[in-house]
Amino acid sequence: MSEREVVITEVALRDGSHAISHSFTTEQVTNVVKSLDDANVPYIEVSHGDGLGGSSIQYGFSKTNEMELIEAAVNAAERSAIAVLLLPGIGTVEDLKEAEKIGAKMVRVATHVTEADVSKQHIQLAKELGMETVGFLMMSHMVPAEKLLEQALLMESYGADTVYVVDSAGALLPHEVRERISLLKENLSVKVGFHAHNNLSLAMANTLAAIEEGATRIDGSVRCLGAGAGNTQTEVLVSVLDRLNIQTGIDIYKMMDLAEDIVAPILQEPQEITKGSLVLGYAGVYSSFLLHAYRAAEKYRLDPRDILIELGKRKVVGGQEDMIIDVASELAGYKIS
Amino acid sequence: MSEREVVITEVALRDGSHAISHSFTTEQVTNVVKSLDDANVPYIEVSHGDGLGGSSIQYGFSKTNEMELIEAAVNAAERSAIAVLLLPGIGTVEDLKEAEKIGAKMVRVATHVTEADVSKQHIQLAKELGMETVGFLMMSHMVPAEKLLEQALLMESYGADTVYVVDSAGALLPHEVRERISLLKENLSVKVGFHAHNNLSLAMANTLAAIEEGATRIDGSVRCLGAGAGNTQTEVLVSVLDRLNIQTGIDIYKMMDLAEDIVAPILQEPQEITKGSLVLGYAGVYSSFLLHAYRAAEKYRLDPRDILIELGKRKVVGGQEDMIIDVASELAGYKIS
Repeated sequence: MSEREVVITEVALRDGSHAISHSFTTEQVTNVVKSLDDANVPYIEVSHGDGLGGSSIQYGFSKTNEMELIEAAVNAAERSAIAVLLLPGIGTVEDLKEAEKIGAKMVRVATHVTEADVSKQHIQLAKELGMETVGFLMMSHMVPAEKLLEQALLMESYGADTVYVVDSAGALLPHEVRERISLLKENLSVKVGFHAHNNLSLAMANTLAAIEEGATRIDGSVRCLGAGAGNTQTEVLVSVLDRLNIQTGIDIYKMMDLAEDIVAPILQEPQEITKGSLVLGYAGVYSSFLLHAYRAAEKYRLDPRDILIELGKRKVVGGQEDMIIDVASELAGYKIS
Repeated sequence: MSEREVVITEVALRDGSHAISHSFTTEQVTNVVKSLDDANVPYIEVSHGDGLGGSSIQYGFSKTNEMELIEAAVNAAERSAIAVLLLPGIGTVEDLKEAEKIGAKMVRVATHVTEADVSKQHIQLAKELGMETVGFLMMSHMVPAEKLLEQALLMESYGADTVYVVDSAGALLPHEVRERISLLKENLSVKVGFHAHNNLSLAMANTLAAIEEGATRIDGSVRCLGAGAGNTQTEVLVSVLDRLNIQTGIDIYKMMDLAEDIVAPILQEPQEITKGSLVLGYAGVYSSFLLHAYRAAEKYRLDPRDILIELGKRKVVGGQEDMIIDVASELAGYKIS
């Protein structure tokens, strides 16, 4: 195996859970992990789309208990390490202990980009458990690079081995990725990672920009199986990096084959950039806002996009869904006056 | 209308013809053109996928005569100019005269990147007819930038108003696009354009690179409706350019709406990056080679990708399909020895 210059984490079995309504089966996970392992993918993330403990009325119930899926993944992998995602407040320390016990080797502790401080307990526990630990700063487009660095330094101080810039809404432009990654590279001693979404058809452009600026941990999803318009398409990414002579250690032909033969049949519908995902990326807002904005738009006779764009400008975050009505009524008022 | 800094040509009704087996109807063309016109798209290309006269056993028969489609487009457009594509050898001067007579305002005369000299007659005729004229250098990844410039200068000398770098196989990497566009910008007095394909998920990255280097004419296809993995997705492109404060003069909301409501229902299947299109982009070969390579691979018990990659390295061009068997037998021989 060649040395890996870029280390890829495959997220289709976690982020892709959103795209198929959390319906992964043990058999699907086993088959996908076996083929990814055979292609020499170093890390494979398996969890509910919203991380450990995500199965709920609010985030959608998993068809199969995620611990069963994680266990199946661990059993199917000979070389690949199985990773889990944990959002403090959704997943608990007990969930993390259980995942570690059944064989998860890496955890990514994810918080909103301004709330790194809530990751302290979980990052520290993960290190105590001997797990490789990643700090995962979601919605990284919502704050200036300096604020992102401040939060990344917190995660580093808690013991994270890597800090990720996570473009949850697929809203970052390439120059914004460069600015963020380069600032983190200059100021962190730990590794820097990048997780893209393709809402603006920029997942590959942003990923290459991140790698050029020094990110060495990169997320991909086979066949774009991820939330919204999906992530950076893994089999395409490894092909492009090969053309650029950047070593991933992954077998390109095997990745192409498993994408077509093992993963594509799992998709309920192919991953395209639809109007919904485009609007979310353009406005830079949470996907959970979409339905609320459409409802508010109907009530106030507005274009839902105007509401979403205004929410993006005001940097409204998850949990502030009541702001959607406020913004809508305000926009409607402006129109009348 | 704001001044257009980037002038977009919508190619879904021409390049997209490949994706739906040349089955466009007059009604579809009328509806798409009306909506694009309403969104203020400046140029709309309408032709068989292989240009005027492409309807044939070799390239696939059009369901509806393309002159009827062009006429429908001209009648549906109030502000947009209707463009046609012409590949000398497939389309004739008579085809061009007929298209101009029924109202086409722009022609793009397309040749293989090393064969600009065959465009002379058609470019000159188009200028005599008073048409806006574009030289369209296909498979631009196959030659070094200096050779591309030489060919572009020929097209300029024949009277082309714009010369396009055309990444027919979706094989160019962003730095290769930069090198080509910047060299053309430095040495041509006419406008420079860029046409991407998304086989390596780089259509948007390459398009932005081209614009940064000074390309002002850009092709897009709504909902990625184009050959292979499609082109730069127009409604996404105008949204990204808006975020970058680059004026296209196009109404973003209307583009998003027509993509979802008018164009998406036309697609026979959504445009994804499949194994086939990925391999073509990775190898940098003609799409027509794919089936031949699979047949040769079966005969010689090879992986078809090895054949395609070798064909790409040897820069085999369309019309040299007999080389596919030569390469396959040679590769098989290497394996035995």
